[in-house]
Amino acid sequence: MNEDSFVVPEFKASAVSAGLKKDGGLDMALIYCNVKAVAAGVFTTNRVKAAPVLLSMEHIEAGKARAIIANSGTANACTGTRGMSDARETASLVAKEIGASPQDVLVCSTGVIGLPLDMEKVKAAVPKLVTGLSDKGFRRAAEAIMTTDTFPKLAYREGRAGGKPYKVLGMAKGAGMIMPNMATMLSFILTDIKIDQETLSKSLLWAVDRTFNRITVDGDTSTNDTVLAMASGMAGNGPLSNSDKKILREILKEVTGELALMIVKDGEGATKTVKVRVKGAPDQDSALIAARTVANSLLVKTALYGNDPNWGRIMAALGRSGIEMQVNRVDIYIDDIRIVSGGLGTGKGEEAKAAEIMKRDSYSLVIDLNRGAYEDQVWTCDISHEYVSINAEYRT
Amino acid sequence: MNEDSFVVPEFKASAVSAGLKKDGGLDMALIYCNVKAVAAGVFTTNRVKAAPVLLSMEHIEAGKARAIIANSGTANACTGTRGMSDARETASLVAKEIGASPQDVLVCSTGVIGLPLDMEKVKAAVPKLVTGLSDKGFRRAAEAIMTTDTFPKLAYREGRAGGKPYKVLGMAKGAGMIMPNMATMLSFILTDIKIDQETLSKSLLWAVDRTFNRITVDGDTSTNDTVLAMASGMAGNGPLSNSDKKILREILKEVTGELALMIVKDGEGATKTVKVRVKGAPDQDSALIAARTVANSLLVKTALYGNDPNWGRIMAALGRSGIEMQVNRVDIYIDDIRIVSGGLGTGKGEEAKAAEIMKRDSYSLVIDLNRGAYEDQVWTCDISHEYVSINAEYRT
Repeated sequence: MNEDSFVVPEFKASAVSAGLKKDGGLDMALIYCNVKAVAAGVFTTNRVKAAPVLLSMEHIEAGKARAIIANSGTANACTGTRGMSDARETASLVAKEIGASPQDVLVCSTGVIGLPLDMEKVKAAVPKLVTGLSDKGFRRAAEAIMTTDTFPKLAYREGRAGGKPYKVLGMAKGAGMIMPNMATMLSFILTDIKIDQETLSKSLLWAVDRTFNRITVDGDTSTNDTVLAMASGMAGNGPLSNSDKKILREILKEVTGELALMIVKDGEGATKTVKVRVKGAPDQDSALIAARTVANSLLVKTALYGNDPNWGRIMAALGRSGIEMQVNRVDIYIDDIRIVSGGLGTGKGEEAKAAEIMKRDSYSLVIDLNRGAYEDQVWTCDISHEYVSINAEYRT
Repeated sequence: MNEDSFVVPEFKASAVSAGLKKDGGLDMALIYCNVKAVAAGVFTTNRVKAAPVLLSMEHIEAGKARAIIANSGTANACTGTRGMSDARETASLVAKEIGASPQDVLVCSTGVIGLPLDMEKVKAAVPKLVTGLSDKGFRRAAEAIMTTDTFPKLAYREGRAGGKPYKVLGMAKGAGMIMPNMATMLSFILTDIKIDQETLSKSLLWAVDRTFNRITVDGDTSTNDTVLAMASGMAGNGPLSNSDKKILREILKEVTGELALMIVKDGEGATKTVKVRVKGAPDQDSALIAARTVANSLLVKTALYGNDPNWGRIMAALGRSGIEMQVNRVDIYIDDIRIVSGGLGTGKGEEAKAAEIMKRDSYSLVIDLNRGAYEDQVWTCDISHEYVSINAEYRT
């Protein structure tokens, strides 16, 4: 599907190169709604929250928004009172230009921590962003929020509520500091469904928990993670039935899931994406804890990079995860190749087959604890030489 | 001090190349005591424990030992009932050869998980190990337990208890899977002090908690970590006074601390060792949690590699650690250069000075939370391209 056809009634977007990024690329984006949209957000759990996160948390309390202004280049985090007043001024500049209240403007930043926003550049950029608004501007907006991302991330679905069609458009940026809960991750979800704030908020949380909170790149959680949803209500549907709500949740999950997978695929230096699935767990928490511990293990991730079915490292990660387990019940598979059976290796032949699968850019690592009926999954990527290069040299 | 003078009365050691390591290097070591020594141990907290760990935990319950037999090449972990019977047979072979009970022999293995011990090679090696015992054999024994270590690790101190001199000799291996609690880490501490089992055990735990449990290389905890202490009691001292016990604890801490630092210095691919010290914490737990989170952050460790005083990543790690903190109170130093004051960067000048210090192979990263009187510290290393190479290619 051509990204130009990713259109949601009443929404427009634009992007400019404001000069905040060293490379001169697009670095500011504006998302705009012709009407006051119902709005919901999910924010980083990091106790060190960037100024724009604190501001957006405050603004979204009213449950409404007209616009999202976002920049890359600087995270406006750890910038003290100046950072907070810069974020407020940014919202005010946009509000004035579009004829709204500052409270109706949400603000997001991503980039280097500790670097203040250059407000002269922001001031110069805002009018251009408003002038440039277009219902085909989403791809450029997705580009403008990229940091070490290598491609813009967009996803699109259509649904029906009470017979009326509606659209859901999502965009995201990721790349580093990706780890539950969330990441240096921004994502904006736009829809025209008519929905009350509580339902939008709950549906968004439900989808985020199953997608963005199930991915990991490096185990670090950022100061700026933000997922925002805006619903213009122009689809004309009536009150949502339980079935409508369920469908919406699934559609949101598809959109955020597609974006989440793109983020893992585009993880800094990643050469592959691996789904770590833990089944047979005695309870839900254990399944997730086990999957996360394996998915975050540096030794597992370097083995993935080396196409090495080094199941000893997987067993060691399971063992230190703290979950209840019996070593002699554990089975481990690479896709459908069983490399561990009852806690023991199945031999060099199976490992050789598994190593072949591991050369692919995507596969599943399945762990069956054979202790119960619960399962969960986390998407991860490998850690490569390139990851080290990117992160040793990011600011220089 | 010449390592040949690292001698402890009644203790001998030897090493052979049994053929368990692919490169043909020394891969089996024997530590032997002429008398039945008081023995104590600290073992991995990983729920997946290697067969030799389970066996040594069982054997050490009696509080006595005559010998430690150790091998590199294979961890004898995840090897099922065969692994357990191989570990038992190894103990029996040594016991028979030295004329002791199998219960008096402790067994340690390190290397690849899932690979069984080649018992034919072990059988052939044991008599040679016994024949080769020498009071100058400790360096070779330290070599024989190396895996990806690049140098053998020995430390030595002397003390006095009730006027009688005693000696403490320690050896260790480390390199990867190094993270509290402990690591793919083996360490053997030998002393001639006369001591009861309870005091030896408590003193060892006290020292290990302050040294081996305060280091991290990659955040993974191994299936085989073991620290063993043996005391021959030949120093001739009387019952230990409280002052004697205190001095012994400090000496054990010095020996294990020196070994722990060697392990970090020799971390896989590490180019430098960094002491992460958190002070001004509201309580002891918070100080340690904060230090560990920063010391384990992949983004911090790659910044250390790049000599980049990227304090934003340090703030982000503190924020996700979950401790109580106030961003605007945090100060951060590289040695004595303050790069963050009251949560804000102190500017490019100070950062440039810090970057110069970061080129050294050892320095301190000090975080002052300014929230209380507690402090703690963790030693870490950087994550380099070489780390990725070593771990992507370890088994191949």
